[in-house]
Amino acid sequence: MKKCKICGKPAEIFLYSQNLALCRKDFVKNFEKRVERTIKKFKMATRYEKILVAVSGGKDSLALLHLLNKLGYRVCGYYVDLGIGDYSKKSLEKVCKFSEEKKIEIKIENLKDEFGMGVGEISKIVKNPTCSVCGMIKRYMFNRMAQNFDAIATGHNLDDEVATLFGNVLNWQTEYLSRQTPVLDGRESLKKKIKPFAFVSEYETATYAFIEGIDYIVDECPHSKGAKSIFYKGIVNDIENQMKGTKIRFLSGFLKNREVFSSPGSKTELKPCKKCGYLTSSEICQFCRLKERINTIKGGNHGRNFLENQ
Amino acid sequence: MKKCKICGKPAEIFLYSQNLALCRKDFVKNFEKRVERTIKKFKMATRYEKILVAVSGGKDSLALLHLLNKLGYRVCGYYVDLGIGDYSKKSLEKVCKFSEEKKIEIKIENLKDEFGMGVGEISKIVKNPTCSVCGMIKRYMFNRMAQNFDAIATGHNLDDEVATLFGNVLNWQTEYLSRQTPVLDGRESLKKKIKPFAFVSEYETATYAFIEGIDYIVDECPHSKGAKSIFYKGIVNDIENQMKGTKIRFLSGFLKNREVFSSPGSKTELKPCKKCGYLTSSEICQFCRLKERINTIKGGNHGRNFLENQ
Repeated sequence: MKKCKICGKPAEIFLYSQNLALCRKDFVKNFEKRVERTIKKFKMATRYEKILVAVSGGKDSLALLHLLNKLGYRVCGYYVDLGIGDYSKKSLEKVCKFSEEKKIEIKIENLKDEFGMGVGEISKIVKNPTCSVCGMIKRYMFNRMAQNFDAIATGHNLDDEVATLFGNVLNWQTEYLSRQTPVLDGRESLKKKIKPFAFVSEYETATYAFIEGIDYIVDECPHSKGAKSIFYKGIVNDIENQMKGTKIRFLSGFLKNREVFSSPGSKTELKPCKKCGYLTSSEICQFCRLKERINTIKGGNHGRNFLENQ
Repeated sequence: MKKCKICGKPAEIFLYSQNLALCRKDFVKNFEKRVERTIKKFKMATRYEKILVAVSGGKDSLALLHLLNKLGYRVCGYYVDLGIGDYSKKSLEKVCKFSEEKKIEIKIENLKDEFGMGVGEISKIVKNPTCSVCGMIKRYMFNRMAQNFDAIATGHNLDDEVATLFGNVLNWQTEYLSRQTPVLDGRESLKKKIKPFAFVSEYETATYAFIEGIDYIVDECPHSKGAKSIFYKGIVNDIENQMKGTKIRFLSGFLKNREVFSSPGSKTELKPCKKCGYLTSSEICQFCRLKERINTIKGGNHGRNFLENQ
């Protein structure tokens, strides 16, 4: 039986990429230490700053909120109910249970209060892929809720970051590449965004959540079926299995070279949205335009009928 | 039965990435047209220039020599006998047979005449991976033989280029990335290097070689077993199978952005090798240093004994 490299007791967790065997207690210490190192290295936040942690009810975001709170950061959770049937119901339950058990405040907002419907219906009406509509809405709402905070933290882990990077590189999305970083500085009303889990794997966040007794929703969002990110994760895992350490190397190597993708002239000019005041590249921001569009459709007969049939 | 998109006769070749069915004759025309388009687009060569085509005895390089000759380019083949046992014997046979049948001159040089031994033994002595020693030697010898030519052509196909690119990106080898291009301009004694097959797949070069009656060595070099490039090719094929057109998109997208990897200050200063006069970044070039080292070892007892035991 393998022994914990730190204390010599029986090991339960094996981190193959680091060739490290650990007991539960030392894994938790090691995990928290590495996340804190990431926070410091990328100057994500200090213990004086207020962090809004976006939670979905899944393992990564709840584990992140728990970890930051445990390490003494000033945190508050934020959950957006996207109105995705049973999935949203279950995840809201997990979020509420977590909040009560851990005594951590989690603010909750509902897409139905904003648009009168969930993200699935919205994306059908505007005929755009659900995941891109959902992403845009969440980015906006996270930022809006974070106005009195110093940073927005999300639970993106190493596997998420590497899958995104992989897709962006395969398609040479240089604009996205120039912005893919564990810490994206804010300006004016656009809040700083941080990803403290960017260098810990999905296996590690799941293990941490399990050991720390976090009850989370295991189901994937039903809209993510067939998502490219899931396909890319599989490919990256195939490579990692053959060549240990590829994920970390790929992401770290990229971050050392990321600046080559941001040419000085490429920064889009941003100005306040004429409706809501948030920074946008057009006259009216995407969120306000979406709201206008949904309201127009709801006002018309066809739209109303369509919605009533849902 | 599918019909040829050009002439309507029964189709035999299906190019899935282009969703195109063709008969043999129209595939050959289409293939040659596309390769010629690459030659022109990247200003690889004109019909007034002399091209040295490096051949290995495999499908790609022999097909390239055949195609360039058929299209009226001024070509000459060049084969380096690497002294890799049966593999080199068989490939030399294929090269000689091709030269006789197609009436195309192929110059032949032998590593044994240079070093007194094959590449396998050399790499053992210098304790460097065979493929990197082999690559260095071939680059030098190709260039030396090409002194009276305008360009060196190699048979690298789309799959080769994409696998190389994939590896270079996973490890963010920016120096290699800055030089990965279908045409690398020459300077002084360093000859221009061209890859006219960079945008046609391995499946297509094999089909072309087969239809054009080229007899080539099918075996892979025994030293390539377990090579990362083969692993990467498999991964890239997995992605291509799911997302048609990925290979072309990945390579083309990269080439549009390649310049970001070549910072103005990064160009290594080159000066003539004190032994042979070719451009190098050190006093004496790698090839001359290798020769010196091998000669020293051959002169000593241990070296001689080691070699006699081979």
